Amino acid sequence: MSDRVDALVPFAPDRPKTRLADVLTPAERRGFANAMATDVLAALEAAGFSPELLATEPTGRDVPETVDDRPLTEAVNAALADRAPSPASPLAVVMADLALATPRALSRLRGSGDVVLAAGTGGGTNAVLTRHPAFRVDYHGASYLDHLRAARDVGATVREADSRLLATDVDERDDLAEVLVHGDGAARDWLRDAGFELDAGDGRVSVVREE
Amino acid sequence: MSDRVDALVPFAPDRPKTRLADVLTPAERRGFANAMATDVLAALEAAGFSPELLATEPTGRDVPETVDDRPLTEAVNAALADRAPSPASPLAVVMADLALATPRALSRLRGSGDVVLAAGTGGGTNAVLTRHPAFRVDYHGASYLDHLRAARDVGATVREADSRLLATDVDERDDLAEVLVHGDGAARDWLRDAGFELDAGDGRVSVVREE
Repeated sequence: MSDRVDALVPFAPDRPKTRLADVLTPAERRGFANAMATDVLAALEAAGFSPELLATEPTGRDVPETVDDRPLTEAVNAALADRAPSPASPLAVVMADLALATPRALSRLRGSGDVVLAAGTGGGTNAVLTRHPAFRVDYHGASYLDHLRAARDVGATVREADSRLLATDVDERDDLAEVLVHGDGAARDWLRDAGFELDAGDGRVSVVREE
Repeated sequence: MSDRVDALVPFAPDRPKTRLADVLTPAERRGFANAMATDVLAALEAAGFSPELLATEPTGRDVPETVDDRPLTEAVNAALADRAPSPASPLAVVMADLALATPRALSRLRGSGDVVLAAGTGGGTNAVLTRHPAFRVDYHGASYLDHLRAARDVGATVREADSRLLATDVDERDDLAEVLVHGDGAARDWLRDAGFELDAGDGRVSVVREE
């Protein structure tokens, strides 16, 4: 197991997915966020990572976890400072809402480069693997551009892991359609059980919910 | 040049990008659509394809072109029937609005499989490579699922080319932000010249236009 790569999965069960508030109750958002985290953790395991939750409160899951209730960027940077990633000991940071992430897609993070970035839709950064002790994250705004800059500033080489499956984070109503079209895990099952179905109009597909 | 793969690029200069009507005039939409097509054609060339426009009207470009003013699905299926793709003679169909497509991402289409699909955001299909004479397309609604089914129906093996850069078609205002963040070709230059800049709020980034 010595070539397993540690992967932190930031997870905030206490403030789940506020941009889904128009379609899901707070309790439902919590349940759905849990289902997505289950899928991400399983895909990481299957891809040869050692996943570990970086949670804002204890989750009770059977997975190693660090509890840190600070905002996302601060908590991740504290972990990066603490662990000092290196080529011999890389560290990945993978968002818990990548409901489509497959082992194959996650494996791409392990390609060469001091810093490997998987961009998210909308200018974000959905996953990072760093082998450089000085690289830090900043998840505000168009974080992908900030991360390119941050990597260059510390002299790190950067590569993109180009993956639609890693680019799709699930934040808004239309993102649920992606899970129904392409998902095959706990998050897809959760949505189906909750009555969601695809609504294919003329443009991008969306979802409807059975009453 | 014998291992170059033919790639059809459907292009409708006469009805450009209606969902961008709230940010661009008709003439601007035409100009921007042209810039995106320029980027796609160049990336295909660099990836070892022989691109050919399948245009609704003559474009005057220095690229082989077939003019067919029927709707997209009909025109593409006529070309598929006419060319009868095979393992020795595959045919790709790549949308003209994939402004982020790089040669490397497009190369993924050439992987194994009778039918290789690159999904688009929103359940669509942004690129296909087929080596099977009976596979046909249907671009309405959630076409990705329809294409999986269509491939299975003719006994074709299917593979996904998992790429964010191929998944990003540019249809709506927020998609322009993707071009400003990740693009580096004619489409990005066109947007900058037209005064567009990134607007990074708290969620996904969008664009603003200088007056």
